[in-house]
Amino acid sequence: MAQHVNSDPTASPESKRVPGVTVERLSIYSRVLAVLEKEGRDTASSSLLAERTPFTAAQIRRDLTWFGQFGTRGKGYPIAELRQKLNEILGVNVPRRVALIGVGNLGSALLGYTGFGEHNFQIVAAFDAEPKKVGTKTPQGIPIYAMRDLLRVVNAAEIEIAILAVPVEAAQKALDAVIEAGIRAVLNFAPAPLNAAPPVRLRNVDLSIELEGLTYYLAHESES
Amino acid sequence: MAQHVNSDPTASPESKRVPGVTVERLSIYSRVLAVLEKEGRDTASSSLLAERTPFTAAQIRRDLTWFGQFGTRGKGYPIAELRQKLNEILGVNVPRRVALIGVGNLGSALLGYTGFGEHNFQIVAAFDAEPKKVGTKTPQGIPIYAMRDLLRVVNAAEIEIAILAVPVEAAQKALDAVIEAGIRAVLNFAPAPLNAAPPVRLRNVDLSIELEGLTYYLAHESES
Repeated sequence: MAQHVNSDPTASPESKRVPGVTVERLSIYSRVLAVLEKEGRDTASSSLLAERTPFTAAQIRRDLTWFGQFGTRGKGYPIAELRQKLNEILGVNVPRRVALIGVGNLGSALLGYTGFGEHNFQIVAAFDAEPKKVGTKTPQGIPIYAMRDLLRVVNAAEIEIAILAVPVEAAQKALDAVIEAGIRAVLNFAPAPLNAAPPVRLRNVDLSIELEGLTYYLAHESES
Repeated sequence: MAQHVNSDPTASPESKRVPGVTVERLSIYSRVLAVLEKEGRDTASSSLLAERTPFTAAQIRRDLTWFGQFGTRGKGYPIAELRQKLNEILGVNVPRRVALIGVGNLGSALLGYTGFGEHNFQIVAAFDAEPKKVGTKTPQGIPIYAMRDLLRVVNAAEIEIAILAVPVEAAQKALDAVIEAGIRAVLNFAPAPLNAAPPVRLRNVDLSIELEGLTYYLAHESES
């Protein structure tokens, strides 16, 4: 266990036991289970889960033991029960209220991204530095506020998460502002990694990494 | 080795030896090395890399042995050389030409995403179903074509990668069209996972997974 925890430098020892990489695998298990459930299955073995994910059956069994015993040996995991348990662990069994910082192209795209709502994330307020946008609503009906209203709106609307969709040069200032407003979970889309000290949790989304996962195969195709 | 390869169901046995999860770690090593280089370092030990990534030093050493021996035992990896080698392996040492399918909010945001250019990805053509947009250029000067011109433009511009930034209901049709046009690497942003048969490589970007990596900590904060 200690080895697992140490392998995750984002872990502050007092705040968690499960490594961040395990948490990411749980999200993937939860999605694969949803697909298996749609296929009409009731149970899933670790080998079946391994077939549908990039992980080994042994890895999957190890991950799931962090959260106690599921199912009966030999019969596989009960899908509905395991999914619900995973969603509880991931904290997505209850709606999470999100503030969007920056209503440019990316922010507008994220407002229309139906995948968030499907996973219980609700963008309830948007913020922009552009005076023309402030006081209007997005096409989805989300009010757009000025950055100076952040603290007030975050408290009133009980917002827990901020998504930063601002230009690189505005990213650090936006991060400082959301932390000042009491937000402890931040997803940064600006293509410059930011840092935040615990208890704030920050994730930098790097879209070019997704493309690199493809170029490897382009570069090595001729070897096949 | 066999175990590693088997652990990746996206691997077609003839086309690769390195598992997809290793490839993703290589991208992260490459980025961390860039940061270390900026800090003025010449060499990096596996323990230093472990401090800056969610992986153990043993895992990092194991990953890097896929690509032969680097550096001298005890002195750490030479940063510039390792970075260059990783970028070659990842296929990002040469520019890669990309087509963007869909010039809505998300597509417009991706056109302005400077992170792609920094990693040698060049969006050279955009496509849209909207007749009003076809024949115009994006603010970045990228021409917007009709979908029926896909095959011709992909060949003429030697495009290797397609990014799908279309609505869910248009995603499968857009995927069929880019495959038909000979593209073998596809990044899908529509929030419905698509599938493609080898030799086509497809990655589904799921932005809600990024948020789930945060809610876990929100859900478990009270336990700290």
